Amino acid sequence: MLNQRVERRLAAVLAADVAGYSRLMGRDEERTLAQLKTLRRGLIDPAVAAHRGRIVKTSGDGMLVEFASAVDAIRYAVELQQAVAKENAGVPPELRIEFRIGIHVGDIIIDDDDIFGDGVNIAARLEGIAAPGGICISDDAQRQIRGKLDVVFDDMGPQELKNIAEPVRSWCLRFGDQGSASPSP
Amino acid sequence: MLNQRVERRLAAVLAADVAGYSRLMGRDEERTLAQLKTLRRGLIDPAVAAHRGRIVKTSGDGMLVEFASAVDAIRYAVELQQAVAKENAGVPPELRIEFRIGIHVGDIIIDDDDIFGDGVNIAARLEGIAAPGGICISDDAQRQIRGKLDVVFDDMGPQELKNIAEPVRSWCLRFGDQGSASPSP
Repeated sequence: MLNQRVERRLAAVLAADVAGYSRLMGRDEERTLAQLKTLRRGLIDPAVAAHRGRIVKTSGDGMLVEFASAVDAIRYAVELQQAVAKENAGVPPELRIEFRIGIHVGDIIIDDDDIFGDGVNIAARLEGIAAPGGICISDDAQRQIRGKLDVVFDDMGPQELKNIAEPVRSWCLRFGDQGSASPSP
Repeated sequence: MLNQRVERRLAAVLAADVAGYSRLMGRDEERTLAQLKTLRRGLIDPAVAAHRGRIVKTSGDGMLVEFASAVDAIRYAVELQQAVAKENAGVPPELRIEFRIGIHVGDIIIDDDDIFGDGVNIAARLEGIAAPGGICISDDAQRQIRGKLDVVFDDMGPQELKNIAEPVRSWCLRFGDQGSASPSP
């Protein structure tokens, strides 16, 4: 087969971006960039490391993170969204930085520290359908965390995702009653 | 949560054992053990390494192997069964060593190089329902190899597996037309 010698591994792929990034930048570029930098240094990057994740790449407002475990990836995402929500308390809605997060489990291709494949594309598309401050995960991810985490995801049913051949059954985080999934030390 | 600091990773777990091992041992212990040793040294162990797998443990007739990729795990299993079938050509059926193989993808727990969790148990149970010389994989494994390997698995539907709470949709390898999944160099 063509890809016989390609390096593959199972990973939980997390894609995140800032909801309304262009609008925020249009309103105040310097403030937005400074806010993002503060969030990354103080919150996002240390928490990725704490959950054994690896930041594969970042763009202006987005990032792609790889975790060895789906449980770790979702624990990280919940912790991040809860922490960002806390930061946003008191900030006027139009100035809030809110992330949308998509997570999928896939047998991805690794090349030169970058990651490729359907697994990556699906995570990015799931991010696109997540609500600001929300988390949307694929069925493959949901199946790996069932009974292992105290968070509730609601079934969104099969979702048509751009450039993905088959509909992907998707689940979105239910806010409010996250029980013991609260930020870990 | 109780298991907040447990080390987890997504892995393709392969469980294999020798079909009719007790019968073979009852017939000729020394011959059976020598056959198994030859297979392990000449075939099984080198192929595991070639497919980036890790032998977690072995018992008299069984082994548990962990792969980072589901594609690698299934490619290995197909290659192994094809090679063993070749070894068995000409050997009287009652003296043949034939493996049953089960493969599942799970978010497993790693402790001291051993692996634990539902993911491991499901692989072992799938092995139990595989035919001699056959491969039985879970739906979670099948979903990760779709479109990536030139092998055909037939849908066995949901299977009740001992000590596993929910039925596991399972797939078994269709023999004969394995196309380009033939042993890699």
